[in-house]
Amino acid sequence: MSPVISYESFLVTESFEGFEDPEKFKEYIPKLEKYKKELEESVLDEYKVSMPKPIDELVKDQLDAVDYMYEAKLLTPEEFEITDSTASKIVKNIGDGKWTAVQVLKAFAHRGTIAHQFTNCALQIFVDEGIKRAEELDEYQKKNGKLVGPLHGVPVSLKEHFNYAGKVTHSGYVSLIDNLTEEFGVTPQILYDLGAVFYIRTTQPQTLMHLCSESNYSEVTKCPYNISLSSGGSSSGEGAVVTFGGSVFGIGSDIGGSIRSPAAFSGCFGLRPTTHRVSMEGSTSSLGGQETIQAVFGPLARTVEDIETMMKTYLNQGKPWNSDASLICMPWRDVPKPNAKELTIAVIRDDGLVRPSPPIRRGINTVVDKLKEAGVKIIEFTPPNTKLAYETINKMYNCDGNETNRKMLGESGEPLVQLTKWSLNYGEGSRMFTVPEVRQLHMTRDALRNEYNKFMVDNKVDFILSPAYNNVAPHPREVYNWSYTALFNILDLPTLVLQTGLKQDPELDVWTEEDMKHQYRSKLEQLENEMYKPEEFKHAPIALQLSGRRYHDEEVVAAGKVIADDILKVNLLKH
Amino acid sequence: MSPVISYESFLVTESFEGFEDPEKFKEYIPKLEKYKKELEESVLDEYKVSMPKPIDELVKDQLDAVDYMYEAKLLTPEEFEITDSTASKIVKNIGDGKWTAVQVLKAFAHRGTIAHQFTNCALQIFVDEGIKRAEELDEYQKKNGKLVGPLHGVPVSLKEHFNYAGKVTHSGYVSLIDNLTEEFGVTPQILYDLGAVFYIRTTQPQTLMHLCSESNYSEVTKCPYNISLSSGGSSSGEGAVVTFGGSVFGIGSDIGGSIRSPAAFSGCFGLRPTTHRVSMEGSTSSLGGQETIQAVFGPLARTVEDIETMMKTYLNQGKPWNSDASLICMPWRDVPKPNAKELTIAVIRDDGLVRPSPPIRRGINTVVDKLKEAGVKIIEFTPPNTKLAYETINKMYNCDGNETNRKMLGESGEPLVQLTKWSLNYGEGSRMFTVPEVRQLHMTRDALRNEYNKFMVDNKVDFILSPAYNNVAPHPREVYNWSYTALFNILDLPTLVLQTGLKQDPELDVWTEEDMKHQYRSKLEQLENEMYKPEEFKHAPIALQLSGRRYHDEEVVAAGKVIADDILKVNLLKH
Repeated sequence: MSPVISYESFLVTESFEGFEDPEKFKEYIPKLEKYKKELEESVLDEYKVSMPKPIDELVKDQLDAVDYMYEAKLLTPEEFEITDSTASKIVKNIGDGKWTAVQVLKAFAHRGTIAHQFTNCALQIFVDEGIKRAEELDEYQKKNGKLVGPLHGVPVSLKEHFNYAGKVTHSGYVSLIDNLTEEFGVTPQILYDLGAVFYIRTTQPQTLMHLCSESNYSEVTKCPYNISLSSGGSSSGEGAVVTFGGSVFGIGSDIGGSIRSPAAFSGCFGLRPTTHRVSMEGSTSSLGGQETIQAVFGPLARTVEDIETMMKTYLNQGKPWNSDASLICMPWRDVPKPNAKELTIAVIRDDGLVRPSPPIRRGINTVVDKLKEAGVKIIEFTPPNTKLAYETINKMYNCDGNETNRKMLGESGEPLVQLTKWSLNYGEGSRMFTVPEVRQLHMTRDALRNEYNKFMVDNKVDFILSPAYNNVAPHPREVYNWSYTALFNILDLPTLVLQTGLKQDPELDVWTEEDMKHQYRSKLEQLENEMYKPEEFKHAPIALQLSGRRYHDEEVVAAGKVIADDILKVNLLKH
Repeated sequence: MSPVISYESFLVTESFEGFEDPEKFKEYIPKLEKYKKELEESVLDEYKVSMPKPIDELVKDQLDAVDYMYEAKLLTPEEFEITDSTASKIVKNIGDGKWTAVQVLKAFAHRGTIAHQFTNCALQIFVDEGIKRAEELDEYQKKNGKLVGPLHGVPVSLKEHFNYAGKVTHSGYVSLIDNLTEEFGVTPQILYDLGAVFYIRTTQPQTLMHLCSESNYSEVTKCPYNISLSSGGSSSGEGAVVTFGGSVFGIGSDIGGSIRSPAAFSGCFGLRPTTHRVSMEGSTSSLGGQETIQAVFGPLARTVEDIETMMKTYLNQGKPWNSDASLICMPWRDVPKPNAKELTIAVIRDDGLVRPSPPIRRGINTVVDKLKEAGVKIIEFTPPNTKLAYETINKMYNCDGNETNRKMLGESGEPLVQLTKWSLNYGEGSRMFTVPEVRQLHMTRDALRNEYNKFMVDNKVDFILSPAYNNVAPHPREVYNWSYTALFNILDLPTLVLQTGLKQDPELDVWTEEDMKHQYRSKLEQLENEMYKPEEFKHAPIALQLSGRRYHDEEVVAAGKVIADDILKVNLLKH
C-alpha cells in the first residue's frame, strides 16, 4: 500500500493506549445515566410531540421534520409568528408591548423542545430558568419603561462547551461530568447582559473534533430537513435547533468547520468570524493555549440579518475586549450594501482533493448563474496548495501528540467513538511535534495566507464562493472530509455559510456517465464519493460558503445578505 | 546557593556545546574583515569629522556628541535647519520647491555619517544610492508636478535585519554574511513606495537578544548624549542615528524592549505598537514561526509627531495588510487630542524586581508632578505578578531549547559575545519545552493580560506610566535587566518611550541614606543597582514609558504628544 496521506487517517489502525479503560469508566456510568435521565425529564409534558410513527421509522422515511411541524401545526399560529421572527422584530414587538419576553421564550422553548424530539439537539433544557429570566426582563421593562439592551427577550441557544453559570460544563468529555462552572464565559455573559434569554444547551461530539455529533453523553444529532442525516458538527445541536427555529440565533465554535458544517448540513446560516473578534474566554475544551490553529466562536441563524444583529450588538454594545484581552478592539463597522454589479467573486468548484457530489454542483451552478445575472463578475478559481493546507492543518490539530486528549479522555477511560479514533489519527497522530516543527507549521500557514491574500488583492477579488463540504448532509458518523471548511480555518478568512434555498432532489442530483469515469485522487475521495447515493439524501439543504479577506467580516455579511435575500431570495422564516 | 531565578541567567555557567567552533569560524574572518572595511570606506571624505581628541579620550570624557555637533558647527546652518525638521515640514518644503529631495538627503546623510563616527551606529552607509533615489524623486516631481507620496524625500533609517533589496541581510549572524536578499521586506517596501529615501542600515547585537549592541560585525553602539554609555538595543543603531538626527525616523523591532531601550537610552521617542499592525514579513532573524511571544516593528523619532506620521501614512496609505496577511486590517484612527483633565494615569515607580536608580526616580517624580499640575488623575500602581511575567517571557524566548540559534550561530561557529551567553541562558536555557508546556506559557500570558486589562477597565485607567529600565543608559555590555520593557511585550500593550527632557545630573541623582538600607530582592537587583555610580552617567537622557490598552496605539501616541509637547515641553529639534 502507498503511504497514508495525513488526511487519510481512517486507513490507520492505532491501539489508543492510554485512552480507553472499561474499569475506570464503570464509575462514570451511573453519572452518565443520571445526566441523560435529567435531559429526558426536562422535556415538558405540554411540549411533547405525539409522533405519527415510531421515530426509527420516521428516520427510515427520511422525514422532513420542519415541514412536518408546519403541516401538523405543532405550534399555535401565534407561536409560529413569534418563532419565525428576527431578533429585531422580537425586540421591537416586546418594546411596543405587543409581546412579552415570557411569551417569546415559551414559544421558542416549545419549538426547541420539539426540535430536540426530532433531532436530539439538546444536552440540557431548562425552560423554567428561561421563564424566570424572561419574567425579570418583563419586570424591568415595566418598572423602567425601557428594555435592558438590544437583545432584550431574544432566545439564544448555546453549544454546551461554553461555561454556564451554576451548571456542569463537560465539553463532551466524561471526565468533566462534575465540572461545575460558576460563572458564564465572556460571550454568554455579554449576550445575557444585552438581554438574551437562555433555556437550552446543545450537543457536540466527543473531543469536539468531528463534523458530526456522537459522544458518550448523547446519540447523534440529526438534520431537521431529513432526520436520517447528520446535523453536522461539532456545533451539532446548534445547527439543528437553530434551523428548526428553537432559537433566534445560536453560538457555536469552529476550528475546522464546526460552525459551518452544522449550518450547511442542518439548513441555516452560520458565520465563522475572523479570529480574535468573539471571545472564547470561559469555555471548556482541550484547546487551552493552543494557538497554532485558532478556534473561533460565531453565530448560526435562519437569516443573515440575525447573524449581523448578533455580531453588531455583541461587539458594539458588548465590547468584549473589556473582558478578554486576547481580542482585537475592533467594533463592527457599518459597511454600505454592496452593489452586485461591482462585486468580483472567485468560485471554487472543486478543491482538488474531493470532488463535490451532484447536488452541490447543482447548487454552485445555480448560484453562479444567478450571480452573473445580477451582474457579479465571476472568476473561476482553482485554489492552490489545498493538499498542503489540509495536511498542515491536520498536523496542527494533533501537534501535542494528543497529550491533552489523552489526559481528558483517559481520566475517565471512556470508550472512544468512531470519529474520535479517526480524528486522533489526524496529522501525525500521537507523535508530539518539537517546538521548531510547530514553528514550521506556522510558517507554512502564513505562506498559504499570503498566497491566497495576494490572489485576492491582485485580482481585486472581493469574495470566494465554495462548497462547504463535498456533499450535502451525510449520514451520521460518515463525515470524513474536512478539506472545504478547514481551508478557511488555516487561511483565517471570515466565512459565511449560505443556504441556497435549494434542496437535494434524487431525480436531478445523480452522477452522470462522465462522472463515472472519474479517477479518484485519493482513498478519501473514493470513500466520500461512493457514499453519495441520490435516493438517500432527500431534501437535504444545499449550502455554500462565502469567504472574504481577514477582518472583513462585515463585508462578508453584507454581501451574504444581498446574495441570500435579494439574489437567491432564500426565506427560512416560513410563517 | 539558592536556586537561580529564571531571569538570573548571569549566574549560570553553560558550556554552549554546538555553538562556538574556532575552526569553522576561520573561513568567515576574511569576509567579516571585508564587510567592516566596506563600512569604513563608505564614510565619505567630505563627511569626515576631525575629532577634537582621539575617540577613546572623548569616551572617557563622557562627551555629549549632540551638544558638540551644535557647538562645533559640524553642519552648515541650512543642514541644521533641514535635519532639525519633522517629516511634514520636509515634505511641505519639498512640495513648495524650497528644498529638493537631494538637498534633504545630503544633509541627513552628512549628519548620519557624523553620528556613526561618534556612536558607531551604522552597518552600511550608501549615500550614493540615497542620492540616486532622491534624484528620481526630484525628477518625478518636476515631471508630474506632484509628490510620489506622503513621505516624498524623507530620509528613513532601517535596522539591518529588515531585508534590503539587493543587499546582504545577516541579522547579526555571521553565518548569514552571504545572505543576499533580493527584495525589500514589506515594511521598507511600503515606506519606499510612500517616498522615503534610504542611505543607512544600522547596528544590532548578535542574535538580536541584547538590550545592547555587540556582535561580530561591529563594536558596541554608543549613546549620543554620553558616548561612554550604551545606545541600548537591540535596535541599537536606530537609537543612536535617530537621536543624533541622522534620519527623520527609523524603524526598529521589539520583542523585549528592543525599540524602547534604544529610544530611552539614546534619547529619542520610540513606539512599540500592538502586535500585527506593522509588518515583519521579509525580515531575517531566528524568530520565524515563533508566536509564543510576538516581536513587533515600530518607529523611533525625535518627535511624537513623526512617530504618528510614520504610523498613519504607513497604515492608511500603505495598507500593509494587502502584502502581509498576518496583519490586522486596522487603519490608523484619528483620535481627538486628549484633555489632560480627563486623563487617568497609573504610575509604576518600582516593578518589585529591580529598584530604579536615582535619575529615573527623579524623572518619575518630576513628570508626575507636572501631570498633576496639568490636571491628570494619577493612581499609584503596584503592578501584580511581575516576577511571573518576567519568568514566563524568559521561558518563551528560549522555549525551542535554543535550537534555532544553535543552528544559526553554530553554522559559522562564531564566538559568542557576553550578552549572547546571558540570553541563551534565559528561562530554561537549552531545554526544549514540550507543546503542552508551551501552551501553558500561553495560558499564563493570557491570564496576565486579562489581569492588567481588568485593572485598567475597572479603574478607568487610560495609560500606565513606568520606567523604561531601572536606570538611564548603562555602560556597554552591562545591561542585565529587561523587566520594565518586557512586561509590556508579554502584555502586548502599545508603549511609547517618552523623553522627559531631563538629563542625569551627578549632583542631583545620588543614592540617599535611605536607599543604602535597601534589602536587595535578588542578585539581579543588586547587580543592576550597584552599577549605578552617579559620576559615570553624565547627561544620560531620562526617559519613561507610556502604555495604553491593546490596539489603542492611536490613543497612546495622542497622549504622548500632549505630555511631551504641551506638558513637558520637550524639544529635540534644537535648530
